[in-house]
Amino acid sequence: MDITVAVDAMGGDHGTHVTVPAVLRFLKEFPHVNVVLVGLPDVLAVELKACHATVGPRLRVHAASEVVTMDESPQSAMKNKKDSSMRVAINLVKSGEANACVSAGNTGALMATARFVLKTIPGIDRPAIAKMMPSSRNETCVLDLGANAVCTPHNILQFAIMGSSLVAATRHIENPTVGLLNIGSEDQKGNETVKEASELLKASRLNFQGNVEGNDIYRGSVDVVTCDGFTGNVALKASEGLAKMLADFLKQEFTRSWWTRIIALLAWPVLARFKARVDPRRYNGASLLGLKGIVVKSHGSADKVAFYWALRQAMDEARSGVIQRITEQVQDQLAELAAQETAVE
Amino acid sequence: MDITVAVDAMGGDHGTHVTVPAVLRFLKEFPHVNVVLVGLPDVLAVELKACHATVGPRLRVHAASEVVTMDESPQSAMKNKKDSSMRVAINLVKSGEANACVSAGNTGALMATARFVLKTIPGIDRPAIAKMMPSSRNETCVLDLGANAVCTPHNILQFAIMGSSLVAATRHIENPTVGLLNIGSEDQKGNETVKEASELLKASRLNFQGNVEGNDIYRGSVDVVTCDGFTGNVALKASEGLAKMLADFLKQEFTRSWWTRIIALLAWPVLARFKARVDPRRYNGASLLGLKGIVVKSHGSADKVAFYWALRQAMDEARSGVIQRITEQVQDQLAELAAQETAVE
Repeated sequence: MDITVAVDAMGGDHGTHVTVPAVLRFLKEFPHVNVVLVGLPDVLAVELKACHATVGPRLRVHAASEVVTMDESPQSAMKNKKDSSMRVAINLVKSGEANACVSAGNTGALMATARFVLKTIPGIDRPAIAKMMPSSRNETCVLDLGANAVCTPHNILQFAIMGSSLVAATRHIENPTVGLLNIGSEDQKGNETVKEASELLKASRLNFQGNVEGNDIYRGSVDVVTCDGFTGNVALKASEGLAKMLADFLKQEFTRSWWTRIIALLAWPVLARFKARVDPRRYNGASLLGLKGIVVKSHGSADKVAFYWALRQAMDEARSGVIQRITEQVQDQLAELAAQETAVE
Repeated sequence: MDITVAVDAMGGDHGTHVTVPAVLRFLKEFPHVNVVLVGLPDVLAVELKACHATVGPRLRVHAASEVVTMDESPQSAMKNKKDSSMRVAINLVKSGEANACVSAGNTGALMATARFVLKTIPGIDRPAIAKMMPSSRNETCVLDLGANAVCTPHNILQFAIMGSSLVAATRHIENPTVGLLNIGSEDQKGNETVKEASELLKASRLNFQGNVEGNDIYRGSVDVVTCDGFTGNVALKASEGLAKMLADFLKQEFTRSWWTRIIALLAWPVLARFKARVDPRRYNGASLLGLKGIVVKSHGSADKVAFYWALRQAMDEARSGVIQRITEQVQDQLAELAAQETAVE
């Protein structure tokens, strides 16, 4: 099946300088995808020319006259920029002209606009931001990573259902294991929300493994880690900060003298392999889950490689029918919960 | 001033095999400290003999007939083990025979016992667990790391006061900068508790810099990061998990073939310097702050090097008079808050 991805070409810190080259690589590597570049036509024309690329059946340009800035409030973006590249890209998903969209624009505006335009899947109260993270075993899907600072136990259950559906669809894992992020493995740990979420998860049809701790994300103890957006965001950012510090320190040590620089040259193939395994750019595509359409968020500071991986994430989701899967799973789980409640009555 | 540290010699996964050698190194390196080893006299005698060490004026043994196990509940430890090595070590701080105590025993039991025996400093509602973390600039003190899963805004303010006092006393930083862990720098971010805590922090005499994010811990943006124990614990554990995964991957790449092993040998001095800079063992000593006595918690799995660093943390705190400093700071801040409230009325 051919997939069409709408790209907010203006979003992110580097705009078209990053999005257009990434799209060209993406089109070259995947013959069965098409891309619609959404943005200011003049700017796109210049960038395409610089890249020696021309539009055609697989690469179209869709005009949008406005750009949401990186520090703009969601309210301002929604109210004043109805023809923004971000919004028009989402509109293309809504109308069915695209199977997914990708934006490196500001997260708040993207979430608010996507929710307004696409609406949430029935049974999902609030969308969440999900991301695959590297782990010692495989990959771990973690959500919510910051869309919802305050969550109810039901929100956390819904995040688990969505994460499980995403992993099942895109990673072809039959019945993904799910863990609840907590500060200990015992049942009595954590706050009230977490304790109640644990009960809901136990009663669900999910493959729930109980509480997990922060380190389990990277141990790969479970396929999906569910948590409120405050905790998830702090865990993600702390990890990003630590990874950056370690990378900086490693670089400092290898560039300390001419001798260490020679060693660095010799060690280069080893270090390159190491870097490739944990390269955060490969994990750049964050999914806005729970919407009636596929929206992938790229980091604002993404480079061409990182943005290319976000495009792949969108393609994988579109190909695997993740929206359909979430919709079915939610109905299924809600029916189960309703049946249990009836039985209790 | 001579410092005496009481050591729960039986605590941790390795008991006296780790605590005794660490204590011997500690005594050798710091001539003005004394240690009281608390534990089962027979076990201690065997370990001391194995280490060719003898008791004397600087190294005493204080008998305790029981040991708190690593998975024992705080209730059980408190009720059934009144002569445990952990409790007796804390008693020595209470009685003034020791200036500080160190234990690698289970955190819940240690916190409950310490709180029961030593009591909290007036104005502090709940003690917190604080730790220095490495950062690109210097070190960042983060608290609470898990003692309090649910916190009020006042708790978070008190943690900030305690962390600021700890850094001022032990790191000789005059007016440490304080950040509030949140999911964005803007004021409207986060949950209600965090928003209210932000207001309290602004009104305090602390050197408050506003919200910080997870990555700021490792950027060293501020000297002290305050947060509830749920978020802090997840951030700490996620960091530990990521660091372990990266270390494993690096090792795997350097041991992949005979050629990469040769490169590893050549790169050894560089890698060793890198490792030394971020060695988690150096950051092993976590402080139980807010008590009327110094209690330092070592990781249960700590080795000799890690436990030695926990002993140093206890010594630094005892030397710098951190309890006195927290006590004064709390009174000062409470007076300030009371004055503001009167002014408002």
